[in-house]
Amino acid sequence: MEELEIKEIIEQIDSFLEERKFYDIKELIKEMEPADLSLILAEFPKKLATLFRLLPKDLAAEAFVEMETDQQEELLTSLTDNEVRQVVEELYIDDTVDIIEEMPANVVKRMLNNSDPETRKTINEILKYPPDSAGSLMTTEYVSLNEDITVEDALKRIKRTGVDKETIYTCYVTKPDRTLLGYVTAKRLLLSDEDMIISDIMETNVIFALTHEDKEVVAKEMSKYDLLALPVVDKESRLVGIITVDDAIDVMEEEATEDIEKMAAIIPSDKPYLATSPFTIWRNRIPWLILLMLTSTFTSQIITSFESKLASCVVLTAFIPMIMGSGGNAGGQTSVTIIRGLAIEEIKLGDIFKILFKELRVSLLCGVVLGVATFAKMMLIDNLMLGNDAVTVEISVVVSFTLLITIIVAKLVGCCLPILAKRVGLDPAVMASPFITTIVDALSLLIYLGIATALIPGLK
Amino acid sequence: MEELEIKEIIEQIDSFLEERKFYDIKELIKEMEPADLSLILAEFPKKLATLFRLLPKDLAAEAFVEMETDQQEELLTSLTDNEVRQVVEELYIDDTVDIIEEMPANVVKRMLNNSDPETRKTINEILKYPPDSAGSLMTTEYVSLNEDITVEDALKRIKRTGVDKETIYTCYVTKPDRTLLGYVTAKRLLLSDEDMIISDIMETNVIFALTHEDKEVVAKEMSKYDLLALPVVDKESRLVGIITVDDAIDVMEEEATEDIEKMAAIIPSDKPYLATSPFTIWRNRIPWLILLMLTSTFTSQIITSFESKLASCVVLTAFIPMIMGSGGNAGGQTSVTIIRGLAIEEIKLGDIFKILFKELRVSLLCGVVLGVATFAKMMLIDNLMLGNDAVTVEISVVVSFTLLITIIVAKLVGCCLPILAKRVGLDPAVMASPFITTIVDALSLLIYLGIATALIPGLK
Repeated sequence: MEELEIKEIIEQIDSFLEERKFYDIKELIKEMEPADLSLILAEFPKKLATLFRLLPKDLAAEAFVEMETDQQEELLTSLTDNEVRQVVEELYIDDTVDIIEEMPANVVKRMLNNSDPETRKTINEILKYPPDSAGSLMTTEYVSLNEDITVEDALKRIKRTGVDKETIYTCYVTKPDRTLLGYVTAKRLLLSDEDMIISDIMETNVIFALTHEDKEVVAKEMSKYDLLALPVVDKESRLVGIITVDDAIDVMEEEATEDIEKMAAIIPSDKPYLATSPFTIWRNRIPWLILLMLTSTFTSQIITSFESKLASCVVLTAFIPMIMGSGGNAGGQTSVTIIRGLAIEEIKLGDIFKILFKELRVSLLCGVVLGVATFAKMMLIDNLMLGNDAVTVEISVVVSFTLLITIIVAKLVGCCLPILAKRVGLDPAVMASPFITTIVDALSLLIYLGIATALIPGLK
Repeated sequence: MEELEIKEIIEQIDSFLEERKFYDIKELIKEMEPADLSLILAEFPKKLATLFRLLPKDLAAEAFVEMETDQQEELLTSLTDNEVRQVVEELYIDDTVDIIEEMPANVVKRMLNNSDPETRKTINEILKYPPDSAGSLMTTEYVSLNEDITVEDALKRIKRTGVDKETIYTCYVTKPDRTLLGYVTAKRLLLSDEDMIISDIMETNVIFALTHEDKEVVAKEMSKYDLLALPVVDKESRLVGIITVDDAIDVMEEEATEDIEKMAAIIPSDKPYLATSPFTIWRNRIPWLILLMLTSTFTSQIITSFESKLASCVVLTAFIPMIMGSGGNAGGQTSVTIIRGLAIEEIKLGDIFKILFKELRVSLLCGVVLGVATFAKMMLIDNLMLGNDAVTVEISVVVSFTLLITIIVAKLVGCCLPILAKRVGLDPAVMASPFITTIVDALSLLIYLGIATALIPGLK
C-alpha cells in the first residue's frame, strides 16, 4: 500500500474514533495486510488496544507480529489475560519466540502463563538455542507424514491438521521416533495418484540444517537451492523444526545490513536506526573511530620524519590529501568487491592468484589513466588556470608517478587483506575502506616522499 | 554440498571418464542438486556435452539454468537441434528469457528455432519489457482458475496442468478475458470442502505489480508481505505472468550488491567478478577515481593558500591525514547507515529532523570522546613516548578541538546528503564514504587551519 493511501486511512480512522464509529473502523481495516496495519496502529499509541480489539482474531495476531517491540509490549500489558491467550494461540511458535526474546521478564511471564502447556514447553526448548542458530529461527509447526501411508491419507491428514502449520507445501516424512527420512512437496502430492505410497514418491536427498548451525549459512543454502522450507534436525537426525523462506529472506537482509555496517567501520546492531538510542549508536561507532585515529600515528610519524623536506618544498603538502584519497578509494573499491564476492560465495579462497592477477591488470590500467589525468589536471588547472607556479612539471611528474604506484599497491592490499582475514577465520567485512585507507595512507606517504626525494634534486 | 564433497565427486567423475564408465557417472550424478551439478560440470569444459547427455532430462534443464553464461553458450553450440529442443522445452519461460538475454544472436536463433511456436511467441513478448521491470522477471507458467468452478474441479485442473507450472501454491482467479479477480492458495484449496465454489473462498485483496514496475520495488513488496508469488498485470488489469519468491530473492541479493558497489564508488555490474574482464572492471572503477581526484583540487587550493603558515609550523601538517581520515570515517558511518536505512525502508524522507537531531547528539558524543582521546594520545604517545617536542599542549588542543568540530560537521553532512539525494530523485547510495570523504576533507582542512590561525598566536 502506498504511503499516501495509508495516510488517508489514518485520517479516516481518526475521525471515526472521534465519532465513536467503531463498526466503521472494523469494516475499514478487516481486510488489510498485516504489514500495513502495523504502520497504521503505530499512529494511535493511545488507542492501540481499542483498535486491536476491533480486528478479526487471526489478522490481529498477524499484525501483532509486524509491530515494533515497544508497541507489542504496550499492547501485551493493556490486554486482558484472555486476550493475551488468544493472541499467543494464533501466533506461530517461531514468532512467539522472537517476541519473547525482546520482552521484559514480567511480559514474558504473562505470555507463558497464557499459553497451553505444550506450547510453553516448545517455546522453552527453542529459547535454549543460541540466538544466531537455525534452532532459534525454526518453527515446530510443520506437517509430518509416515512413510507407509497413501497419498490420499496424506492429503486427509493435511486437511485435518494443516490449518495451524506455517507451511504445508513441504511435508516431512519421518519414522515414529521422528528420524527424518525424506520429504514430499504438496505439488507432488497433488499431482500423484491417490493410492500411491508416500515412501515411493518421497525425495530422500534432503538438504537439512543442524539446530546449532549459523542461520546465515542456512539462509544462503535456501537461496542457493531455491527452497521454500528447510528441515532442522538434532544430533540424532530427528526432525525438530523447519525454517520457512520468509524468515530466510529476513536473515539475508539483516546479514547484508550487518556486512554494510561492518564495511563502514560500525559495530552492527539488529535494531532499526530510528529505534536505537544515540548512546547505543555512539557505542557502535566510537571503537573504530578511536582505533583508526590511533593507527594514524604512523602517518604523523612519517610526515614528521620528512619535516624538513616538506618545509623546503611546501607545494608537496598540497597533494598529500589527493594522493591518500585516491589510494583509499582505489583500495576500497577492490576490498569491497572482494568482500561482497566472498559473502555471496562468488569468490572462493582458492581463487586468490586469479584475483591477484586480475587486480594487477586492473590497477595498472587505473593507475596509468589516473596518473596521466592527474598530470594533465596539475598542468592545466593548478598551474595554468589557478596560476600556481610552484606546480612545476617536476612536481607534477612526482605526484602522477606516485599515484600510479599508490593505486597498484592500494588495489593489491585491498584484495589480499579480506582474503587473508577469511583464511584466518576473521570476518572479511572489517577489511573494507576505512581499514584499508589507514594502511594505504601510510604506504602512499612513504611512496610519495620516497619518489620526491629521488626525483627532486634540490630536496634535502 | 560441502566444497570437499564436490571435490571428491569431481575426482571420481574424472577417473570414471578415463575408464569410460559412463553408466557409473550417470548413477553418481542423477540425484544431485542442480546448483551443485553446475559447479561440477564447470570443471569439465571439454566433456561438458558428454556429461550433460548423461543427466535425466529435467535435471539437465535445471542444471543448465544454474550454469555460467559462457558454459551455457558452449553447450548450446555443441548440442544437436533435437537436444536443444529438449532443454528449451523443460525450461521455465522466465529462465529461457534470462538465458536468451545473455546469448549471442546465432545461439538465440537456435534456441528460438527449437522451441514450439507458442513458447516462441511468449518469449518474444517478455523480451520486449525493459530489463529491470517486473515484466522481464515474470514467468507465464502459472495456474489460473475460473471463479465459478468448485474446489474439486480446481484440484483436478491443477493435477492435469500443474506439472509444467512454476508454482501451484498460489492459483490466480481470472475472468475469461484474463482480468485478475483474486487468488486462492493451494493451502486454502486443500483445507476447503470439495464442493465449495472458488469465488467464495478466493482472496480479492490482491497485491500485484504492473509489467513496467521496477523489479527491486516488486521484490521488496514480496518480502514485506511474505509472498511466495506475486501476479503481474498489464494496463488493462489482465494477468500476464507471475513472479516467484526465488527470483525475488535473487533480485534482492543483486540489489544489495549493487548498493554496496555504489557505496564503494564503483559503477555496478551484474556479472560475477571472476567472469568480468579486467578492462570492464577498470571501466566501472575509473570514472569515480577521476572525479574524486579532480574534486581534491579544493583541498590542494586550501593548503596552498595556508602555505606560509604551514611552513612556519610544519608539525601541523603531520596531523592533516588523521583529521581528514577521522572526518571521513565519521561521515561515512553516518551516510552508510542512512543509505541502508533508506534502501530497506526503515527510514523515510519525513524523518529528516528526527535523524538530524539524533546524529547531532551522536556526533557530540563521538566528537568529545575522540577529541579527548586524541589529546591524550598526542601528549602521551607523540610527545612523551616518541619524544616529538613540536607536539605541544597548544598544538594538541588545536588538533583535538578541530576533531570535535570536524566529527560534528562530517556526521551532519553524512546524514543530509543521502536524504537530499533521495529527495531530488538521485540514488542515495552514491553519497557514501568516498564522496562524503572528499567534501569532509575540504571542510576539515578549513576548520583545522582556521582554528590553528585563531589559537596559535605565532602563526602568520
